[in-house]
Amino acid sequence: MYYGADYYPEHWPEDRWATDAAMMKAAGLNIVRMAEFAWAKMEPEEGEFDFSWLDRAIDTLAAQGIKSVLGTPTATPPKWLHDKYPDIYPVDEQGRVFGFGVRQQYCKNNVTFREYTRRIITAMAGHYKDNPNVVAWQTDNEFCSRCYCDNCRKAFVLWLKRKYKTIDKLNAAWGTVFWSQIYRNFDEVIVPIAYHGDGSLHNHNPGLLLDYYRFNSDSVVDYQDLQLTILRGLVNVPVTHNFMGHYSELDYYDLAHNLDFISWDNYPAYLKSVDGYPEVAMAHETMRGLKDKNFWIMEQQSGPSGWNTLSDTPNPGQLRLWVYQAVAHGADAIVYFRWRACTFGREQYWYGILDHDGIGRRRYQEVAQTGVELQKLEHLLQGSKVSADVAIVKSYDNVWSHSITPHNSQFDYNTLLKKYFDALLRRHICANVISVEQDFSPYKLVLMPAFDLMTEEIRQKCEEYVSGGGSLVVTFRSGTRLWDSRMS
Amino acid sequence: MYYGADYYPEHWPEDRWATDAAMMKAAGLNIVRMAEFAWAKMEPEEGEFDFSWLDRAIDTLAAQGIKSVLGTPTATPPKWLHDKYPDIYPVDEQGRVFGFGVRQQYCKNNVTFREYTRRIITAMAGHYKDNPNVVAWQTDNEFCSRCYCDNCRKAFVLWLKRKYKTIDKLNAAWGTVFWSQIYRNFDEVIVPIAYHGDGSLHNHNPGLLLDYYRFNSDSVVDYQDLQLTILRGLVNVPVTHNFMGHYSELDYYDLAHNLDFISWDNYPAYLKSVDGYPEVAMAHETMRGLKDKNFWIMEQQSGPSGWNTLSDTPNPGQLRLWVYQAVAHGADAIVYFRWRACTFGREQYWYGILDHDGIGRRRYQEVAQTGVELQKLEHLLQGSKVSADVAIVKSYDNVWSHSITPHNSQFDYNTLLKKYFDALLRRHICANVISVEQDFSPYKLVLMPAFDLMTEEIRQKCEEYVSGGGSLVVTFRSGTRLWDSRMS
Amino acid sequence: MYYGADYYPEHWPEDRWATDAAMMKAAGLNIVRMAEFAWAKMEPEEGEFDFSWLDRAIDTLAAQGIKSVLGTPTATPPKWLHDKYPDIYPVDEQGRVFGFGVRQQYCKNNVTFREYTRRIITAMAGHYKDNPNVVAWQTDNEFCSRCYCDNCRKAFVLWLKRKYKTIDKLNAAWGTVFWSQIYRNFDEVIVPIAYHGDGSLHNHNPGLLLDYYRFNSDSVVDYQDLQLTILRGLVNVPVTHNFMGHYSELDYYDLAHNLDFISWDNYPAYLKSVDGYPEVAMAHETMRGLKDKNFWIMEQQSGPSGWNTLSDTPNPGQLRLWVYQAVAHGADAIVYFRWRACTFGREQYWYGILDHDGIGRRRYQEVAQTGVELQKLEHLLQGSKVSADVAIVKSYDNVWSHSITPHNSQFDYNTLLKKYFDALLRRHICANVISVEQDFSPYKLVLMPAFDLMTEEIRQKCEEYVSGGGSLVVTFRSGTRLWDSRMS
Repeated sequence: MYYGADYYPEHWPEDRWATDAAMMKAAGLNIVRMAEFAWAKMEPEEGEFDFSWLDRAIDTLAAQGIKSVLGTPTATPPKWLHDKYPDIYPVDEQGRVFGFGVRQQYCKNNVTFREYTRRIITAMAGHYKDNPNVVAWQTDNEFCSRCYCDNCRKAFVLWLKRKYKTIDKLNAAWGTVFWSQIYRNFDEVIVPIAYHGDGSLHNHNPGLLLDYYRFNSDSVVDYQDLQLTILRGLVNVPVTHNFMGHYSELDYYDLAHNLDFISWDNYPAYLKSVDGYPEVAMAHETMRGLKDKNFWIMEQQSGPSGWNTLSDTPNPGQLRLWVYQAVAHGADAIVYFRWRACTFGREQYWYGILDHDGIGRRRYQEVAQTGVELQKLEHLLQGSKVSADVAIVKSYDNVWSHSITPHNSQFDYNTLLKKYFDALLRRHICANVISVEQDFSPYKLVLMPAFDLMTEEIRQKCEEYVSGGGSLVVTFRSGTRLWDSRMS
Repeated sequence: MYYGADYYPEHWPEDRWATDAAMMKAAGLNIVRMAEFAWAKMEPEEGEFDFSWLDRAIDTLAAQGIKSVLGTPTATPPKWLHDKYPDIYPVDEQGRVFGFGVRQQYCKNNVTFREYTRRIITAMAGHYKDNPNVVAWQTDNEFCSRCYCDNCRKAFVLWLKRKYKTIDKLNAAWGTVFWSQIYRNFDEVIVPIAYHGDGSLHNHNPGLLLDYYRFNSDSVVDYQDLQLTILRGLVNVPVTHNFMGHYSELDYYDLAHNLDFISWDNYPAYLKSVDGYPEVAMAHETMRGLKDKNFWIMEQQSGPSGWNTLSDTPNPGQLRLWVYQAVAHGADAIVYFRWRACTFGREQYWYGILDHDGIGRRRYQEVAQTGVELQKLEHLLQGSKVSADVAIVKSYDNVWSHSITPHNSQFDYNTLLKKYFDALLRRHICANVISVEQDFSPYKLVLMPAFDLMTEEIRQKCEEYVSGGGSLVVTFRSGTRLWDSRMS
Repeated sequence: MYYGADYYPEHWPEDRWATDAAMMKAAGLNIVRMAEFAWAKMEPEEGEFDFSWLDRAIDTLAAQGIKSVLGTPTATPPKWLHDKYPDIYPVDEQGRVFGFGVRQQYCKNNVTFREYTRRIITAMAGHYKDNPNVVAWQTDNEFCSRCYCDNCRKAFVLWLKRKYKTIDKLNAAWGTVFWSQIYRNFDEVIVPIAYHGDGSLHNHNPGLLLDYYRFNSDSVVDYQDLQLTILRGLVNVPVTHNFMGHYSELDYYDLAHNLDFISWDNYPAYLKSVDGYPEVAMAHETMRGLKDKNFWIMEQQSGPSGWNTLSDTPNPGQLRLWVYQAVAHGADAIVYFRWRACTFGREQYWYGILDHDGIGRRRYQEVAQTGVELQKLEHLLQGSKVSADVAIVKSYDNVWSHSITPHNSQFDYNTLLKKYFDALLRRHICANVISVEQDFSPYKLVLMPAFDLMTEEIRQKCEEYVSGGGSLVVTFRSGTRLWDSRMS
């Protein structure tokens, strides 16, 4: 079983690395993730690649028996790239251009950026393809956010042409006759910029919005596929991405599809429920459900964390508890974020296992203790599978549909799902979280609350499940669109 | 008495229209309003007009004895017009350019847009001028919002020149000597963009702001006059506009002046007071007071309504109650919004008399019942007039003045007026709502709260009213400006 | 002892001035501040200076024994200057360009603006250098706000080059290796625009932000030095600036350094604490601490005040109480804002000693009474000095550091300092507020809460103070950066 930490050798003097590796080994760690934000260190000038520092870090760790996962560094492109091609910056929902200085400052549909993505990953994967200490790869970091730039508009037009074939079909599907929004050709179609203020009160055509959210999700999947194609052409180890639990602006089922395994970033202290545990449990189940398979934690909270403001400090024993919760839901590997709190940058106070001064205190001891315990349990956990009698259907399409027209300002589809999950868990019934395409037959009970975007196929699937003896719970606001499409 | 619904034949298959007309007739409806958002259907390409679909709709309705009101479609210009002339888009108070995809996306002072307005209305009114089933016209739809574009700046300069003649008079009136804001000529005058954030915290010169709000209101009136001139040159039926009750960014007395009759859009479930009825009553009185004449309801709420979030669902009997309230305050016609809930667009869940599926249920029955009852009462209502012993003076100039310098963040002039109206109504005294220019002598009591922008003429009128035995209530923050202008 | 009011003769007819002067004398006033917003009156067209009106005002006042302080008028540049050089407008934290119509609409690093500053101050100071009735000068008015324009970016690059010498040192200090933010040269460095929305949630590199805030403060100090150099080359009277008490976006110790004396603008009714007095007391102590010397009040609240919304009206006796509080904390002069409420402009309802109508009522009487009393006390006050046994260390660097990474959304460094000051004052112990560079030895107790940005020098100073018998209170979040810099 892999047990490790996210490690940033570039943040520390090289003469500290051996100490770190020894301290890791002493705590039972056997894996690190590295490099996912280090583009500027690996390509300091355009076309000049330098992996020597990373080679030495991998070697230093390997000397203590510690393996490495490498992240493609595309979430943080270097300044020289942006200065040369300013149109790489994305545009937000209010039409504002993003700039340098944070992260994820690129448009996934930008052709130039995709070319530079190809170059850095080709160089990096080419360099490490035969390194036996590199046991897995991660694409980018926590894909998120939507872009509304003109590159996206052009890509959206192509996406719409593929989907609708003729502009008449698009006009009919979106109902553009309402408010004279009829498009005469695909090139006239707009991106749904929120003209005035609050993005949560978009007044655009709901059909346009829903398709734009789908297109945006597809764009990210397509961008990840670009990375996967390059990686798979060069390396033979599995590839993952670090997902974000309840995050719902991307269709995680789609994003998961071409990956070898799922990993995700688990920060329980951020969740808002009374005690947080059911909400974390549901995040684990959502992640496990992406492929109906066990998964990794790629970032497991190891201390107070945050950017400007911080989460609560984990109590003594809480790190260990969170690890056991993860394992109970199917985590095959635990990688803590991060080895050591950094002394600079926006995450200066995002704590790691070690404090800023590099000394291992309470949290280091707890991590080490937990590692020892897990080793004893490993023979029991190997090949184990989480099973359940109840499933909750989660649909990203429905997240977006409900967000576009919530009807009530308090209504939130994800919160509704959480209420069902929570109620079951408090009766010691753990539900699986599944996509509507997954097989319902293993379950005694399937909950499908507020499934707005019903299709005829899904309706039939539901009827067959019930005919076969299954119990299906549907609620208000289910099947609305199917109803609509049947109207004369 | 007209009793009807807003109807959108363009939203439904043409073979449904006859069913709709028959169901309308069965419910006692005898009028519809149509076409006010259908520019793209009537002029699908520049200069290519197509009224054939609307002809057929009018005919289908007429076959059941149902008359039509037509709206000029200028609130929703088609995409081809915006793509050809992007400067038609308005600019908001924070300087952000609006775009396509919602509605009212045009600047009233844009010369190009005024020309295309002239063309579509000339074509439409020319086509329908002799149609006996078209019994009235509506200008645009719910005029609203302010524009801050460069076209407006130029028009504002002309407006100021007409008002002040010399720049010295403008400088004196606004007090531009304060903070060195002296203008050397009219062309230097700015539009009051809210540079930073919250528009409710404008820090501009109050004189500039007040004149800009007046100018904006005048611009809308002038734009409507353009429409009225064309219509009156071609058609011989009365023309109205659908006002919005308590809405106060335009001087509704001015906007009403050149219309033949007043109509307004009544959505009681949106109002926020405890039970809403006094607030709705005051809206009726405000609308009746625009011309001191009976009026129409052009959009009467017929179900839950809203864009992203929805109002409460009317209880059984509540639609009927709202209609009787309207009639009691002088409504001569009731037109429900809308015949049927639409299956697409931003108002997809804004309910009509019929549900999405076209079936008439509880609300349809209630509308039909109310229609039958109204027919029995018609002989009593005909020629009736609402009279009252008490009047409340409402001044749009004072709305704006108080909004510019509220003194207290909780102070709102309209809310103050509502408190007086509410207190009277709860004692079964219904007040008229009148302009300061209306005759005070019919009233025993005139309430004129917080009348900030007093003039010498108004002061004299008040004194004469009181000398003649009238009772006048004035409050804090009354007459401030008159006081100011007298100071040495 | 000077006792007076801020006076705006340009707001009133010239034939009123003698009445004002006589009423001032009758109330015991002997000084006014004038002209700090009158650029457009003094230079109505480029290069055409007119001081005649101000000459006559000074003479009219002098005839009643009233002296004048003159403000440089740079806070309100005239329209002609902005129209000729639009790049003078500053850019805010979200990248939005400011415009005309409010005040402080200039970038302190703009070379053109600095040249026009030089011209107006040279003309003004040259004109008044020998006028015996001008007894002091004030630079600009209430320096505030940060600019993020391209001029500032260029100036920031130069500032960084001076500070860091090499780009490697900057990269090391800021930790740009985090998230691949490494700069290859100084010209690549950005200004930290808050790309999306809420400026309080800046996600930029904390080192960049902190240096930008320091640079911005230095820019204002440098701009004031430009003014001071011109003034000192021409006039022989002392120069001050009107500070703003608790305002903390500028390093007030730096801004105070080259001034002859401190003055500040005291509006107690704006402060939010339960009764406000401790918070006002601390503001006085903060201002006294800027030079460890007595000070002036250049704007003392004389009535309800505000722009769109107003503070509470001072109760009878409260103006007098506030004056005694100021004197008790070391105020050597009291100048009320303002002589008379204006009838126009954004401060139309910001009351003065006189009401809008020019009549002196309750507040005038109270001001006059207080003046008589102060004259009786003058011999006791002359040369007096405030002393204390306790000091609270205030550091603007730490204000900024904590604002960048507050850890908790409720945490505010200034509020923390206020809590200590308040607790002491309620036990009748008045603390001095001092900079960390000031001598600690006079104090029995020094409070240094949350002193984040510790240096080795400061640490040694603290140890010496304690070794010498002093009591030093340090708290959580003290010395963080020293700790960091020592880590291996």
